[in-house]
Amino acid sequence: MNILDIIEHKKREKELTKEEIDYFIKNYTAGEITDYQAAALIMAICINGMTQNEILNLTNSMANSGDILDLSDISDNVIDKHSTGGVGDKITLIVMPIVASLGIPVGKMSGRGLGITGGTADKLESIPGYNINISVEEFKNNIKEIGISLMSQTCNLTPADKKIYALRDAISCANSIPLIASSIMSKKIASGANSIVLDVTCGKGSYMKNKEDAKRLAKMMNLIGKLAKIKTVCVLTNMDEPLGYSVGNSLEVIEAIQALKGNMAKDVEEVVFNMVFQMMRLSGKYQKNEINKKKVLEVINNGKAFEKFKELVARQNGDVTYIENPEKFEKAPIITPIISNEDGYIEKLDAYKIGKAGLELGIGRKRKEDNIDYRVGIVFDKKIGDRVKKDEILAYVHSNSAEKSIECVEAIKQAYKIGNKKIIKKNIIEIID
Amino acid sequence: MNILDIIEHKKREKELTKEEIDYFIKNYTAGEITDYQAAALIMAICINGMTQNEILNLTNSMANSGDILDLSDISDNVIDKHSTGGVGDKITLIVMPIVASLGIPVGKMSGRGLGITGGTADKLESIPGYNINISVEEFKNNIKEIGISLMSQTCNLTPADKKIYALRDAISCANSIPLIASSIMSKKIASGANSIVLDVTCGKGSYMKNKEDAKRLAKMMNLIGKLAKIKTVCVLTNMDEPLGYSVGNSLEVIEAIQALKGNMAKDVEEVVFNMVFQMMRLSGKYQKNEINKKKVLEVINNGKAFEKFKELVARQNGDVTYIENPEKFEKAPIITPIISNEDGYIEKLDAYKIGKAGLELGIGRKRKEDNIDYRVGIVFDKKIGDRVKKDEILAYVHSNSAEKSIECVEAIKQAYKIGNKKIIKKNIIEIID
Repeated sequence: MNILDIIEHKKREKELTKEEIDYFIKNYTAGEITDYQAAALIMAICINGMTQNEILNLTNSMANSGDILDLSDISDNVIDKHSTGGVGDKITLIVMPIVASLGIPVGKMSGRGLGITGGTADKLESIPGYNINISVEEFKNNIKEIGISLMSQTCNLTPADKKIYALRDAISCANSIPLIASSIMSKKIASGANSIVLDVTCGKGSYMKNKEDAKRLAKMMNLIGKLAKIKTVCVLTNMDEPLGYSVGNSLEVIEAIQALKGNMAKDVEEVVFNMVFQMMRLSGKYQKNEINKKKVLEVINNGKAFEKFKELVARQNGDVTYIENPEKFEKAPIITPIISNEDGYIEKLDAYKIGKAGLELGIGRKRKEDNIDYRVGIVFDKKIGDRVKKDEILAYVHSNSAEKSIECVEAIKQAYKIGNKKIIKKNIIEIID
Repeated sequence: MNILDIIEHKKREKELTKEEIDYFIKNYTAGEITDYQAAALIMAICINGMTQNEILNLTNSMANSGDILDLSDISDNVIDKHSTGGVGDKITLIVMPIVASLGIPVGKMSGRGLGITGGTADKLESIPGYNINISVEEFKNNIKEIGISLMSQTCNLTPADKKIYALRDAISCANSIPLIASSIMSKKIASGANSIVLDVTCGKGSYMKNKEDAKRLAKMMNLIGKLAKIKTVCVLTNMDEPLGYSVGNSLEVIEAIQALKGNMAKDVEEVVFNMVFQMMRLSGKYQKNEINKKKVLEVINNGKAFEKFKELVARQNGDVTYIENPEKFEKAPIITPIISNEDGYIEKLDAYKIGKAGLELGIGRKRKEDNIDYRVGIVFDKKIGDRVKKDEILAYVHSNSAEKSIECVEAIKQAYKIGNKKIIKKNIIEIID
């Protein structure tokens, strides 16, 4: 067996065997296959696709490329949640403490942002002191003792996926359904969760641009989950406009704190509640949505969800005074309002354009080595469906340079479309299980 | 402009602009674009193809990536010949001295073998002393003074093509029509020839496996030649079985010497005469095939063609005593006959399988760094259409190890198919100009 034949087969649309996929994963992880040969194979996969069997074999092969976590000594049902990525997506920061405060153990390994998509790991690190790089032992202890832990992927989990993920990004092959499905599910299999709720984003600010693709991705991940004996539910959510009122690392933490206190943007609320309901259902402890809603409102209103977040931050060495008093977060030096030139309704707020503009501000990384600025970002006053009058403020740019502010204001103006139609956006497209 | 957008466009089957192609070629040559990004783009080209405009732009961009030779001070019509590669292809060694001895100046930069395809540069180097790495000045002087020169590509000719060619081979993208056409024609434009006869091989032992693909490649190269004001003729030749009686470096030089003395295998003769006729026609000095044939037979029979070859070898520092007395070439230590197990006609002699077997013997390189053994190879006694009796010899393996001999004998037996049909093979499929 050799890599040239494997590339040739995929190029000619011949189904790869389990042995061929294992050979590629093993030898690429070991550095025996070069990046350029892997790039050629990945591009051929991206263009010619993969059969169901190939995707399943690729997922298992990547899952087994490194350590496999065993969480069975903590609980027989640790629940994870994952999003396929979006702009302004702070749902993890809100959902996990809510679910934990309902007595359901949750643990999640979070990634860093890459491209226009933010990463929960970066957001958490914007809280001074928060240690994302804890050991697996600490991770398990935290779940056992306080019912929640959020860490980065420090251990040797799916090293094959790490290499392929970085490569995909560098060769314009990020948005391939077989590659996204196998990447996410291999990590989930390796990280030991028994149940997962997947937020499959769909729209301008996500990899899946239309509902059909998002559904294909969701169904593929459900199938992989089923075969790996992981209870999997996919919640298809709208990602045409950024989620919530803020985009940026500490800005999103501040929004999450407000949300945990009951002040949620409409779209955030819809996604949070639906994700929580699914996680409650998968826990086996809660079944009826009507009662569940009451329970969720209860832990928000009585402060338990917020307290759980504080407990998490304190446990992982973060400074809780920032959570208690979000005014303490350092502000970006330049805050510029964007003024509307016209009357009307917000018809569009393009998440892709906002993501790109945010990247230029320094929210995310253009390359893996880039530094990010936790302070910078965008705060929206008006979102899709809102009425706006001439001279009213649409949004604020939080920036660390005058030059970037000017560019960002222009870019954000381009992202807004103001017209006569009052659009009512549905944020939950479909639930697939 | 950035490489990610360019890859994305090709992935989505969008036509690349001239600017995008120039950007890629310039920055890949300069090392600003990585091999893995180039590999992804090349694979996308390989699968999705290229439009005529893209191929023309790619050819020109590669031609202009390094030096461009000017041969106008030698002659207003220097004629080149090129083959798209095959197994046992020693045609250059025979055709060039014949044409030069007819008073037509010829010059050619030859490549080394890679994969199953032999290279004229390697074959010439099997002649002790022959200096293939002469300077461009010497090359031009040789053409001026003795009417012939064969050198390797030592100068900075089409560096972009060199990088892409090596990469294609390492990612299973060698057999793409747009990439072959642009690779060959960029080198021809840069090497300053005014007229070219292209031997477009077609069949098991070549990149083009069927006539349709070979015709498409030929037409594309004719078009590129036309636009570059290079007179271009393509001779489509059969490459289902190896050409001539030998495969191997010094073994093929020996066969070429015999051919120049008038002893040619039937298939070699057919290809040589047709190539020579086309080169004579392009020279403008000869027009009528009937008279041309007489002229060619004349320079073979009166020894002028053979003398021209000796003159070339001597001029480039080779030991002509080897040419005068081919018995001097060092023989491989182990020569093993392959015996037929049955009576019948040779129906097949698979050039691909022979090429692979030859590669294992050490005729060619599996990787660019590999050493080759000039002595080893295969000599055929029976070829397609020949009658063979049980216990007669089919071929000989010339090897440097007993182990390799055994493997090679087996592989060659697999390459032969003996049956009842007497097949008459046509070696010239079509001439396209």
